[in-house]
Amino acid sequence: MVHTLSITLTSASFLRVLDLVGTFVFAISGAVAAARRRLDFFGVLVLSYVAGNFGGITRDVLIGSVPPEALTDGAILFVSVLAGLITFFRYADVQKLSNPVLLFDALGLSLFAVSGAQKALGFGLGAVSAALLGMLTGIGGGMMRDILLAEIPQVLRSELYALAALAGAVVVVLGDQGGLPYSVSALFGAVLCFGLRFMAIRYGWQLPRARLSRPAAGDDEA
Amino acid sequence: MVHTLSITLTSASFLRVLDLVGTFVFAISGAVAAARRRLDFFGVLVLSYVAGNFGGITRDVLIGSVPPEALTDGAILFVSVLAGLITFFRYADVQKLSNPVLLFDALGLSLFAVSGAQKALGFGLGAVSAALLGMLTGIGGGMMRDILLAEIPQVLRSELYALAALAGAVVVVLGDQGGLPYSVSALFGAVLCFGLRFMAIRYGWQLPRARLSRPAAGDDEA
Amino acid sequence: MVHTLSITLTSASFLRVLDLVGTFVFAISGAVAAARRRLDFFGVLVLSYVAGNFGGITRDVLIGSVPPEALTDGAILFVSVLAGLITFFRYADVQKLSNPVLLFDALGLSLFAVSGAQKALGFGLGAVSAALLGMLTGIGGGMMRDILLAEIPQVLRSELYALAALAGAVVVVLGDQGGLPYSVSALFGAVLCFGLRFMAIRYGWQLPRARLSRPAAGDDEA
Repeated sequence: MVHTLSITLTSASFLRVLDLVGTFVFAISGAVAAARRRLDFFGVLVLSYVAGNFGGITRDVLIGSVPPEALTDGAILFVSVLAGLITFFRYADVQKLSNPVLLFDALGLSLFAVSGAQKALGFGLGAVSAALLGMLTGIGGGMMRDILLAEIPQVLRSELYALAALAGAVVVVLGDQGGLPYSVSALFGAVLCFGLRFMAIRYGWQLPRARLSRPAAGDDEA
Repeated sequence: MVHTLSITLTSASFLRVLDLVGTFVFAISGAVAAARRRLDFFGVLVLSYVAGNFGGITRDVLIGSVPPEALTDGAILFVSVLAGLITFFRYADVQKLSNPVLLFDALGLSLFAVSGAQKALGFGLGAVSAALLGMLTGIGGGMMRDILLAEIPQVLRSELYALAALAGAVVVVLGDQGGLPYSVSALFGAVLCFGLRFMAIRYGWQLPRARLSRPAAGDDEA
Repeated sequence: MVHTLSITLTSASFLRVLDLVGTFVFAISGAVAAARRRLDFFGVLVLSYVAGNFGGITRDVLIGSVPPEALTDGAILFVSVLAGLITFFRYADVQKLSNPVLLFDALGLSLFAVSGAQKALGFGLGAVSAALLGMLTGIGGGMMRDILLAEIPQVLRSELYALAALAGAVVVVLGDQGGLPYSVSALFGAVLCFGLRFMAIRYGWQLPRARLSRPAAGDDEA
């Protein structure tokens, strides 16, 4: 129950708001994917919850923070279910938004990458581990969403995805090492991640793929 | 080695019997699915073990009860392997039972939902978390069984499945809050879950799916 | 930074070398599978890391050793990424090796089965649990590699795979109980596992599959 909304968000409450917003938008992406694949009502809710929380749950298990907050935090459960309900009952509206999965997914990715990295830092992990866990927090939910739909996770083949999450997480880690307030580095990290992902979607930025055969001499396209 | 079987089952031993029976029947469902997909001998044993124990293992990891009992408890391993062996060597007989996967699956679901919720309560989790973990204990093994077979988990699209598990788990949680003996609430919870699931299979009870497009006015079928 | 390489490897350093070599070769198998399925640059790196480390991460989570060493150990991350980079930029060369996925996979399997069993013993798990965790350490990375590619894991249907890992792990457990130095039992276990797997590939050794229907009398092919 929120009685007052302080103007100055503390790092903790800022982290919390990010988590809730990230959970909601990721959950929307899961619910839309589930509805599109014709899962039933419960399947939509499960995919909402999984897409919204699997990254964070995995992070929490890996850093030893059990039970994971996604299981014990009523607000997180509430926004996950809410996203599923909205998508289920207003699917036609949600779908009208252009490419809603992609956009919500990009927003969730950005928010989770920064909050995941910050939480890992708070549990005493080193810079590299924290950056990786930030990325994992960002991409874990979407990966499990796709695995549950028996598809190769988008993150492994789409335009600039995990790399955007890693970039956002790295900003938070560097900001932490440089003594920046978390709210500042989180903002920069999230904007960088979202910007990279948005540009990648808009301009079709792709990471290269391995060449399956050796090109002939004079055919070097690298 | 059981020397005597006390008439009055204590809560602990009752929980244990439920766990072993649930493991066995779930393992049968995993083994049947594996044999049907032509996995080899070891694949059948792995699917037995996974279907029988993945839900409980996930629950244990999430509540911080590691190593999970499914790894350290010889009896659980024994019944998992036994179910796989029976299915492997007597597949024709197991298959003759009408819809064995569905029925064994429903029984395992019921037993695991109640024992999972109870274990979570014992580890101090709150009512909502315990109910969710009960459901997860029930549906986790079957979900991983399907994921390993590269299929969308049945639970996400079949008739009333996870909801039945949740109902059973909720009964245990409410019973705990109302001071009922666990053996009573577990019985009620398991019967409720199995009954819901059985009726759902028999009468094809389905949860609704999201409407992919907005119906025309006058075409409201809700 | 290695200044001297002692002739006599201690058990700890031997375990470490095994881990790094196993990670590298498994990571190669993941990268090759990813490149073959046309994942992008980051997808190749993720599959390298997952195939190289998911078995060990799962083992660490199950025995309560968090954060898992694969997340905090810079050298493990380095060899994982290195394997991905080599495969990505020299795919044509890597591919020329006959059946590179299968051979690297067999080597990784052997090394991980023995090191996984040893680590589980070190965390106080019993003989059966340690053998199972050794097997899981060996097969976990490859299973998740295949799951991420939306395929039924090879381990569940290929020639003698998990059984080879289990045999290697059992050797380490028996050696531990018999008081053998770990370096000796690890060598024997790894050679046994690799030998079994190699012969299985070479001679097409298969485990039997369940008969889907009862054979007619006089048609007993068992």
